[in-house]
Amino acid sequence: MTLAHLELEPPPPLPAGGLRVTPLGGLGAIGRNMTVFEYDGKLLIVDCGVLFPDVEQPGVDLILPDFAPILDRLDDVQAIVLTHGHEDHIGAVPYLLAHKSDIPLVGSQFTLSLVEAKLQERRIEPYTLTVTEGQHERLGPFDVEFFAVNHSIPDAMAVAIRTPAGLVLHTGDFKMDQLPLDGRITDLAGFARLGAEGVDLLLSDSTNAEIPGFVTPEREIGPVLDAIFAKARGRVIVASFASHVHRVQQVLDAAALHGRQVAFIGRSMVRNMGIARDLGLLRIEPGLVVGMDEAMQAPPERIVLMSTGSQGEPMSALGRMANGDHRHITIAQGDTVVLASSLVPGNETSVYRVINRLSRAGANVIHKDVAKVHVSGHAPAGELLYLLNVVRPSNLLPVHGEWRHLRAHARIGVESGIAPENVVLCEDGDVVDLVDGQARLVGHVPSRYIYVDGLAVGDIGESLLTERRMLGDGGFIAATVVIDSVTGKVVGGPAVSAKGFSENPEAFDQVIPLITEALLRAAADNITDPHQLQQLVRRTVGRWVNDTYRRRPMIVPTVVEV
Amino acid sequence: MTLAHLELEPPPPLPAGGLRVTPLGGLGAIGRNMTVFEYDGKLLIVDCGVLFPDVEQPGVDLILPDFAPILDRLDDVQAIVLTHGHEDHIGAVPYLLAHKSDIPLVGSQFTLSLVEAKLQERRIEPYTLTVTEGQHERLGPFDVEFFAVNHSIPDAMAVAIRTPAGLVLHTGDFKMDQLPLDGRITDLAGFARLGAEGVDLLLSDSTNAEIPGFVTPEREIGPVLDAIFAKARGRVIVASFASHVHRVQQVLDAAALHGRQVAFIGRSMVRNMGIARDLGLLRIEPGLVVGMDEAMQAPPERIVLMSTGSQGEPMSALGRMANGDHRHITIAQGDTVVLASSLVPGNETSVYRVINRLSRAGANVIHKDVAKVHVSGHAPAGELLYLLNVVRPSNLLPVHGEWRHLRAHARIGVESGIAPENVVLCEDGDVVDLVDGQARLVGHVPSRYIYVDGLAVGDIGESLLTERRMLGDGGFIAATVVIDSVTGKVVGGPAVSAKGFSENPEAFDQVIPLITEALLRAAADNITDPHQLQQLVRRTVGRWVNDTYRRRPMIVPTVVEV
Repeated sequence: MTLAHLELEPPPPLPAGGLRVTPLGGLGAIGRNMTVFEYDGKLLIVDCGVLFPDVEQPGVDLILPDFAPILDRLDDVQAIVLTHGHEDHIGAVPYLLAHKSDIPLVGSQFTLSLVEAKLQERRIEPYTLTVTEGQHERLGPFDVEFFAVNHSIPDAMAVAIRTPAGLVLHTGDFKMDQLPLDGRITDLAGFARLGAEGVDLLLSDSTNAEIPGFVTPEREIGPVLDAIFAKARGRVIVASFASHVHRVQQVLDAAALHGRQVAFIGRSMVRNMGIARDLGLLRIEPGLVVGMDEAMQAPPERIVLMSTGSQGEPMSALGRMANGDHRHITIAQGDTVVLASSLVPGNETSVYRVINRLSRAGANVIHKDVAKVHVSGHAPAGELLYLLNVVRPSNLLPVHGEWRHLRAHARIGVESGIAPENVVLCEDGDVVDLVDGQARLVGHVPSRYIYVDGLAVGDIGESLLTERRMLGDGGFIAATVVIDSVTGKVVGGPAVSAKGFSENPEAFDQVIPLITEALLRAAADNITDPHQLQQLVRRTVGRWVNDTYRRRPMIVPTVVEV
Repeated sequence: MTLAHLELEPPPPLPAGGLRVTPLGGLGAIGRNMTVFEYDGKLLIVDCGVLFPDVEQPGVDLILPDFAPILDRLDDVQAIVLTHGHEDHIGAVPYLLAHKSDIPLVGSQFTLSLVEAKLQERRIEPYTLTVTEGQHERLGPFDVEFFAVNHSIPDAMAVAIRTPAGLVLHTGDFKMDQLPLDGRITDLAGFARLGAEGVDLLLSDSTNAEIPGFVTPEREIGPVLDAIFAKARGRVIVASFASHVHRVQQVLDAAALHGRQVAFIGRSMVRNMGIARDLGLLRIEPGLVVGMDEAMQAPPERIVLMSTGSQGEPMSALGRMANGDHRHITIAQGDTVVLASSLVPGNETSVYRVINRLSRAGANVIHKDVAKVHVSGHAPAGELLYLLNVVRPSNLLPVHGEWRHLRAHARIGVESGIAPENVVLCEDGDVVDLVDGQARLVGHVPSRYIYVDGLAVGDIGESLLTERRMLGDGGFIAATVVIDSVTGKVVGGPAVSAKGFSENPEAFDQVIPLITEALLRAAADNITDPHQLQQLVRRTVGRWVNDTYRRRPMIVPTVVEV
């Protein structure tokens, strides 16, 4: 396996006839998927998603790919091909189109519908090209062919990219449920045809590469829901991802079977299920779905609420119900709540908090630890092997995963018979050139996390997040001193205040005399420089707090000159 | 099921002949387990543990039970009975003994050894009474009988407490592995004898009440380790809890089988395995265990490092290896790392970070998602039913769980045939009286989370944690103004600084004139009160930051008088 180097140089110029592949996101963390392909001076982008922050990125709303390496080449971009409509594949499109709004978006009907809804909120009307499986499109020097893949959202596609440098297959996110609800299986036969033609480079979904075996079919969730509905005496509330149309379909079917009507709750659920219905992806019997008002008036045992909030988001519909502050819905003894969804790593604390609050309010909460109400959307190791054995690629670039997933996928690739030196294990910003049928890591481009917080993009970096973590862990102590700008003499303060440090009102009684004393000594030594005095205050407070509390709050000394 | 009320009154006096049960911890969160039993003016405490903080309690080291309800009655405490040696059952003992050091500690040999080691660090020498299964002890009015239970630590016990008010069984933590490594099964036959006598109240472990079925035997992990060791070409590093003697035993056995020597890494691992060996609980073949120095010189394929750090703790041995800052051990290509442990909810982000860093450094990391290298220590629903059907208690008080666990356990209790009104679902601080064979919720005593941060205990409360979360999410903006103490006129500032807010050096260019302007208007209106000026500065900055950034940093206005 080729290993990424920690300190790679910028890449050399791309040799004539070579294809350059630069993953700007998706490798090293699950999210902000984005890969740039370059051939003959032209660029093709596959996916443009966001990453959701974890506890190490407090206060951050979203993390974007770093567009810097392509920002001055946006005119060369032929298109953004979107494999499917999940946020980690489409969420950053508005941020890229903010730089240049006329880059064409290429994707399936459902995918583009979700992107367009998102862009509409920002009043961007994109150029789009709707494609379907089996279709070929010529996008500059890139000949792109689309293949059906099965995933946890309808209408997902893999893309094959042909240039004179060779044939590349990018699977997008996929699994190989052999009996999917919509009968639209991952096109293994199509991949076999590509394999026969000769796939020079495979980029393939690593998310479940650590997990042995095969996925449980989505349709096996139906009978589980059925059993839950059969037992439920009161209201049933189901939460899932607002894009998981097939999961919702099974909830609708179970509701119909048990004589319950369904109301969609949560803005994105209402919107997406409307789109899915209009596109014929969601089958709704007449009279089955009702509005919120009607649902509130129906007897509880006749209603299912299909809600957002399966990841414990406090502002989601289910989050508000758990907190007891949903405008219409109050959880009561006898309610059954089903979290028919994955638990995205990092969300455990929030999700279990929601479950506990619902339980405390009297609900019977069923989640994936308790019953088989969720199956993953990503191919585990057994299915990845099927794919590798059918495609038999010359080179493998594992994508869509944290390091543990990428490395597991790389091992599977080697086990399947790919030469270890042709398995390119790399991370965001690494540059891989496909030249003469060989994929090689040749350099690295900047690939920082670009943080969105409120309205601003990119004014927050790692050192600022360190400050936030420090403030969050220990609070701060502020000490303000006023000095005469001419003499440098202390004329006011020290005023000491703190937040997040101690609730003891006498906490600072000891330290104020220490600061005063230190300032007097400084005055005696003729130290009048504000910066030096600031450092003195910082040191005095820091030593005291460490000795007295063994804590490390941030210390914020301010010297004001008057 | 009896439901806890949100606003319960303090309990009425305990009726003569009644037994009062007050869980001061362990109900509503997994941790800080502590239950107080009162009969005839005397108290008996079962367990005294700590709770580990989650992301909602930033900077907190530990959470203790609230001792307030018993602090003025410590002379009445007959003993602290410790069911087993896990931190969530013994960790708060030093903090309680700090109030009164001569309260006797009662427990099994291994449990007391762990407590004594902990107390030694604080130079407390406790009064101890070592007991073993089958033994009866008279502790004041409480007749206490001990029963063997099987758990993820050796020498765990259940306790039966007899008073004239009735017979209470407290299971402690348990599961019912029918083929445990040490042959010491949970004493179901003993419980059956109690059941025949008539158990008035059962307090039983709810941790896995949501999980259907039965535990996988601990010994099934042996063959999995065996297969991993057989495949490993380089060094093997195994991480687990430092108290999980049977897990370590299986690692030792696998090492011996594959001709590897073992070094213990991490202070608590070294200490606890020494204790376990001395007590005959850990079987170590001569020459099998070596010191760190010897291990460092041996060929990698001949060594196993048995380490702490399975929960992703950054300062643990494994955490340091992952960060590349362990003094002796550098992770290399070809290393195999096994996390043979649970993943405690809330630790996912840290644990996966460690796994990813180890993977990135070249290790093959095997964890519980990937292979069966861990089984839980707590009885799932199937085993809880066995217990209930054998004991047939008149009343059930589910303990040791979050709300979701307690409620699931309550449902199992009702399903097993206990009258719903005799299943007492309550939370920390609720007071349950057993009178005339009926357990009833009668009131509530204070049961706040007592936070330990550094050297101080209890100077941090919920509002301070809210400040920390706010600071952690958005940082702060400090604005300092100096006024003349006589005239109230502004003579210095505004000085604006911020931490954790923005890396843009010009971020405050706009707001300083706004503050100046607001202060001038205030001067024109003859507003000179420092507090009012402070509020004015706060409002001005707050409005600006919301309009400009849509963020909510903490705003810290300081007005210094000179």
